[in-house]
Amino acid sequence: MNERIGFIGLGIMGTPMSRHLLNAGFQVTVWNRTPARARPLVEAGAGQGKSPADVAARSDIIITMVGDSSDVEEVIARKNGVIEGAKRGSAVIDMSTISPVTSRMLALKLAEKGVQMLDAPVTGGSAGAQNATLSILVGGDKATYERCLPVFQKLGKNITLVGPNGAGHTAKLANQILVAGCMSGIAEAMVFAKKAGLDLGVWFEAVKNGAGTSWHLTTQGPKVLDGDFSAGYMVKHHRKDLRLIQETAHEMGVPLPVASAVLQLYRALQSMGGDELGHQALVKVYESLARVEARR
Amino acid sequence: MNERIGFIGLGIMGTPMSRHLLNAGFQVTVWNRTPARARPLVEAGAGQGKSPADVAARSDIIITMVGDSSDVEEVIARKNGVIEGAKRGSAVIDMSTISPVTSRMLALKLAEKGVQMLDAPVTGGSAGAQNATLSILVGGDKATYERCLPVFQKLGKNITLVGPNGAGHTAKLANQILVAGCMSGIAEAMVFAKKAGLDLGVWFEAVKNGAGTSWHLTTQGPKVLDGDFSAGYMVKHHRKDLRLIQETAHEMGVPLPVASAVLQLYRALQSMGGDELGHQALVKVYESLARVEARR
Repeated sequence: MNERIGFIGLGIMGTPMSRHLLNAGFQVTVWNRTPARARPLVEAGAGQGKSPADVAARSDIIITMVGDSSDVEEVIARKNGVIEGAKRGSAVIDMSTISPVTSRMLALKLAEKGVQMLDAPVTGGSAGAQNATLSILVGGDKATYERCLPVFQKLGKNITLVGPNGAGHTAKLANQILVAGCMSGIAEAMVFAKKAGLDLGVWFEAVKNGAGTSWHLTTQGPKVLDGDFSAGYMVKHHRKDLRLIQETAHEMGVPLPVASAVLQLYRALQSMGGDELGHQALVKVYESLARVEARR
Repeated sequence: MNERIGFIGLGIMGTPMSRHLLNAGFQVTVWNRTPARARPLVEAGAGQGKSPADVAARSDIIITMVGDSSDVEEVIARKNGVIEGAKRGSAVIDMSTISPVTSRMLALKLAEKGVQMLDAPVTGGSAGAQNATLSILVGGDKATYERCLPVFQKLGKNITLVGPNGAGHTAKLANQILVAGCMSGIAEAMVFAKKAGLDLGVWFEAVKNGAGTSWHLTTQGPKVLDGDFSAGYMVKHHRKDLRLIQETAHEMGVPLPVASAVLQLYRALQSMGGDELGHQALVKVYESLARVEARR
């Protein structure tokens, strides 16, 4: 509990996560691009850094929870970034979902300064962040993983060291391919069934416990039936993941016909103005293609 | 229990199904294209029909459990078919998975003779047939459904009247789209993760309870990891379902980019000689494309 924590990125995920660490008794210094976002945490006892470099100078373990690869690069490696303030022996944990290639490059840069890095993307969404039940997929060396484990344990339940630097992101991206398969299958099946004249509510009850079932079918299926397209997980975030998957697959030379098709469908949804909807809104692309509404 | 049952098609599914009916005390008459297949059932007390027409003449409810649309057409509507022997007031239940269009056409032909028809495809595979735990998706009228319910209850657990004639097949095909989404996502994710250098066993444990999970991930994932490509559900059968899905989607004008891609991948697997493997062998196509083996 003597490790001082820096927390950079106070969005839907970062805010409850940093609060958990504060409540657990850690000394926490926060920073956010929009400073107003830090106020509730500062009122609850967090320090407020002037910049990512300043946060790093005041911390032993620095967590970043921002958006895309370029955002992580910005707060870690550019002017006033973590790398300018972090002292030898400190550790950086990036919990965003970004490119494994970018992540490995940042780990190398930090290592030159004697700073260890872990990539530790999460699954479980905003509910997981609020309830500290996130699954955490960690890439990095075992000693740093063990050092940071008490921090992870305040944020999530299912914590796994999956491999060296970058492996956490790779594991997360592979998980997002699973999600793409499930969600596209659900959207296609529902529009197919509705267009054929089936009562979708009856169909859902008949198949939801069968061999076609998935976490997505049982949680997102009812939302689609109810016409609820609010965001648990935003289209633009799954779209970003699928772009990262394509970039990584491109580097490795792995053809991904299904994940690639799903990325194109999310782009169609983006062009329809659906980027801030929940990713179950993928069904809207199919509804538009087939001229039918998959609702009860 | 006074209804006499005819059972046509004694394959992996039909053999245990007809035995359940025999054990339940029904008078059962069987027929199979290869007559030797009928022997164990005849020894157990079943009658043996000379033809589908002969089976129909000796039965009140005639069940067909054969292969594709053309097989069902053959045993019902062609020479020596059910339609030649079935008496007014009898009922035909087709439990194969075939085209909803063919099924509706057969229902109309049988109705002209005063014979009711239900389509009642199943999910749950050979284990479901053996343990009488099949899910049964029924299309047809409510009175015929209720008449046949005591028969269904000897064969499965989750029995649903999903709509009029053809609706059972449509519901089953929509379920097979769910399966295609799950299975392709799993195959792509595993090959992606393996090519990126992850330990697939560690990855599987880290994600199997998360948002990307599915019945397929937890049951087929371990088989892939162990290099077990034996058939619970054969490639050629899922390939047939996906072809029927495309035919039906073509009739309705529903674009299905993901299910269509998966059909092409199964065709690749067919060309690799994998038609009789289990459908988890879809991963072999990706392994071939990416030059990597997704095994432990």
